[in-house]
Amino acid sequence: MRGFTQLSVSDWFYRNRYIAGFSNPARSLYQSVRELVENSLDACEAAGKLPYITVDLKLVGESKRPKVYRLTVSDNGIGIPPQYVPQAFCTVLFGSKFELKQQRGLFGLGVKMAVLYGQITTYKPLEVTTCYDGRNVYTFTLQMDLRSNKPVVLSVKTRKTRKHSTGTTVILHLVGDYDRRLGSRSTGELIQRYLKLTTIANPHATIVFSDPYNNVFKFERSVDKLPPQPRETAPHPHGVDAELLKRMIESSRNTPLQAFLAKNFDRVGPRKALEFLKWAGLDPNMDIKKLTSEDIVKLVNAFKAYDKFLPPSPNVLSPIGAEELKAAIVKLFNPEFVKTVTRPPKSYSGFPFQVEAGIAYGGPVIKGMCDEEGNYKLLFRFANKIPLLFDERGDVCRKVIESFNWRQYRVDDSTPIAIFIHVCSTRIPYKTAGKEMIADVEEIEDEIRLALMDCARDLRRYIYRKMKLIKEQERLNLFKAYITEIADDVVRIVEEDKKKLMELMWKVVTKRGKSK
Amino acid sequence: MRGFTQLSVSDWFYRNRYIAGFSNPARSLYQSVRELVENSLDACEAAGKLPYITVDLKLVGESKRPKVYRLTVSDNGIGIPPQYVPQAFCTVLFGSKFELKQQRGLFGLGVKMAVLYGQITTYKPLEVTTCYDGRNVYTFTLQMDLRSNKPVVLSVKTRKTRKHSTGTTVILHLVGDYDRRLGSRSTGELIQRYLKLTTIANPHATIVFSDPYNNVFKFERSVDKLPPQPRETAPHPHGVDAELLKRMIESSRNTPLQAFLAKNFDRVGPRKALEFLKWAGLDPNMDIKKLTSEDIVKLVNAFKAYDKFLPPSPNVLSPIGAEELKAAIVKLFNPEFVKTVTRPPKSYSGFPFQVEAGIAYGGPVIKGMCDEEGNYKLLFRFANKIPLLFDERGDVCRKVIESFNWRQYRVDDSTPIAIFIHVCSTRIPYKTAGKEMIADVEEIEDEIRLALMDCARDLRRYIYRKMKLIKEQERLNLFKAYITEIADDVVRIVEEDKKKLMELMWKVVTKRGKSK
Repeated sequence: MRGFTQLSVSDWFYRNRYIAGFSNPARSLYQSVRELVENSLDACEAAGKLPYITVDLKLVGESKRPKVYRLTVSDNGIGIPPQYVPQAFCTVLFGSKFELKQQRGLFGLGVKMAVLYGQITTYKPLEVTTCYDGRNVYTFTLQMDLRSNKPVVLSVKTRKTRKHSTGTTVILHLVGDYDRRLGSRSTGELIQRYLKLTTIANPHATIVFSDPYNNVFKFERSVDKLPPQPRETAPHPHGVDAELLKRMIESSRNTPLQAFLAKNFDRVGPRKALEFLKWAGLDPNMDIKKLTSEDIVKLVNAFKAYDKFLPPSPNVLSPIGAEELKAAIVKLFNPEFVKTVTRPPKSYSGFPFQVEAGIAYGGPVIKGMCDEEGNYKLLFRFANKIPLLFDERGDVCRKVIESFNWRQYRVDDSTPIAIFIHVCSTRIPYKTAGKEMIADVEEIEDEIRLALMDCARDLRRYIYRKMKLIKEQERLNLFKAYITEIADDVVRIVEEDKKKLMELMWKVVTKRGKSK
Repeated sequence: MRGFTQLSVSDWFYRNRYIAGFSNPARSLYQSVRELVENSLDACEAAGKLPYITVDLKLVGESKRPKVYRLTVSDNGIGIPPQYVPQAFCTVLFGSKFELKQQRGLFGLGVKMAVLYGQITTYKPLEVTTCYDGRNVYTFTLQMDLRSNKPVVLSVKTRKTRKHSTGTTVILHLVGDYDRRLGSRSTGELIQRYLKLTTIANPHATIVFSDPYNNVFKFERSVDKLPPQPRETAPHPHGVDAELLKRMIESSRNTPLQAFLAKNFDRVGPRKALEFLKWAGLDPNMDIKKLTSEDIVKLVNAFKAYDKFLPPSPNVLSPIGAEELKAAIVKLFNPEFVKTVTRPPKSYSGFPFQVEAGIAYGGPVIKGMCDEEGNYKLLFRFANKIPLLFDERGDVCRKVIESFNWRQYRVDDSTPIAIFIHVCSTRIPYKTAGKEMIADVEEIEDEIRLALMDCARDLRRYIYRKMKLIKEQERLNLFKAYITEIADDVVRIVEEDKKKLMELMWKVVTKRGKSK
């Protein structure tokens, strides 16, 4: 019999890092940029500031294989209190992100995976400079101890600043490959595309990227207003399981059941609580501390079976907005036609979500991309304002598109269209910890389909009118070509004034065309 | 500023359980069966016994929603020493599985996720009965404390046995939905399919399944011989990163570099070590304890750059075998034609892997399935002898099939074929912790393509011959229909003996057909 062992969580993720998107140097480089940029966006939103994020990627050393890069990401975000810095970057599953509202990351994983990957490929320490109070700037050099999941602080420096500005700069060394192709694009193109699309979903952010060849790409904000911050909410009764309910009871004082429900759940007030408890056959005055495990399970099951709760509050969500999305699409793609829609909020398993979609048609940019991709339905996916660029085949958005009845909307393989889908939720059901694929949740699937139908209906009308105009024009051109000849014949027969006759005939023809 | 917190690993997986395949009651039921069965197969292989596994699934209670099931899985495997039982089932990332050889699970995750899911949906304790020494039988009732990631032992009972047999029985309560459709099939059909396909990849195993309606499905072993056990191996130089090398050095005594390499790495003997160190410009006599972090990174990079190591030892792999796979396919699908192939072992990033494939053509079973699926290329995927039934769209196997030039092999949309692909490796690059999709690793992609080409070549030959025979037969039938008439005409002209002439003509015609 072999021995048993306990792995630390950092060790487990080290061994299974491909699950978080760190599968090869090219992909890992992309994923690291993404994790740091998303962290920066969150830090700026937490500070209530318009994000200004700089990303600098440079090759270091002369070695051709493996290629070592220095990645520097700076933001003007909220900064990190110095006592939390080591763990915030070097302890897996340590973080500030577990709240029930729309947010970008999975709790406490992303940026640590980038740090972990950098460490195992280069063994260079991580450097973090941060200012939280606008006065003291701290610079840490850090390493991870993977076996204990604890940070190792190599050095800390402090200096004063008079700028009163907060923010964080992270310098990470890692093995990567900016030039290698990942699918049909190079990693570099993917990083640029990711940053560009990020400013479609976050029109209030400016991102400046300097690449290893010193090319500078500046994606400027198109809106000077911060989007409303998503609020935190209490859990909805449909989204509660026995474990969560048990914890909520443990952290409460002795309270009657009715009051406990009214205080701790979304969409449950005293009256609704009473109504529900009567329906479930539970005593509203029972002390929650007296509930047994069986009672808790019974309560959870009753929650799920009761269909008279209002759906979860949507004010925790922060959609892009149909107008904003349309403006961003027009700015970047300049299509002939575009229609965007924001669906009303819905919910799945007690979590609110909302779908937005857009269809852009025609114009040289989209025509060019359709040819280049060899893919007649160009898809751009976003989840909680993050562009998703990998593993499209496994995503629910692709699934809906493939099964969508395009013909009904006069769209065939050669129609140049681009499709935009944004799903936001307090819990995006990602299939992987790499956050690349949205799982097949029926409710989300339905909403995506409805959003596309809405856009496609307008597109059909547009294409129909366009086709009709074209046909009409062709008919008229044909007529024009023959009208002189016909007129001559008619003149010969009826011996009338030729010019007058032609005018008459033209009038009749065009009128008939219009009334058709 | 909100507070920072540290999550326990069990808490993280609790919050992100859909990543491990626990997304809804139906899918979670499937995943739980799968995790327990795979654990049992491993336990039997560890004991060197032919697996006999029983799976019993029953609805308990009267509640219609949610449906609570009791899942009982029994095996004749090696059993678990009593001191390890609580952690083996209730502590996430605790296990016996981290070794460099082909194995089914990701370390220490699967079965705990099933236990976790059962607990949060039913709060009923887990029951484990196990016998490790053939004399003492222990029965534990257990719960998980998710916040501390520690087991809670509710009770232990011991009894003596005289049977001298080892094995484990697990009883788990969970919310599920046996009848709900997941895609085109019900969960029940998927579970049956999973168990059936498991016996294709493990022809030495017998699995008996009793479903909630008391239907009993018995999938009997078709082979009475255990497959050779995969062996454990030292890491290959191409598969080592700085973190692993640092750990290997820390756990060694003071040793000269050359001896250290020769002792601890796959495919490296004293001579190869010396040759490599000379090439890398490193001192063979240097004490490994004196290597700095920079030296370690340099050594890892030199490992990766050096192309004269033999590829990783393949004796850690345990393929199904082309003959065994063929026999299993014939037994289950009875096709008109079948070709299977086992490719030679290859490696990616220092991990050995091997691809096996099969193409089966025609016969009523496959024709029926092709019609039913509405999918002209039926695909059955296996990874380390586990059938993969979900998320096919995101899998590398599907990707290869989609881009495969089928026309070249005379296969079109209506050709009834089924494709079987098995990938085995010391590290399957799964995209998710739910173990459903193999990631796009170039080397694996290439091998799958080559394996399919090999099978498709034979298929083309078969189809070509079949088509030729059919055409020839048509030609002959046509000729036969007219030969009397023609002969009459000829007879009239040349006034010869009719019967003799017909024989002559037939001979000429059939001969010409053959030489074509």
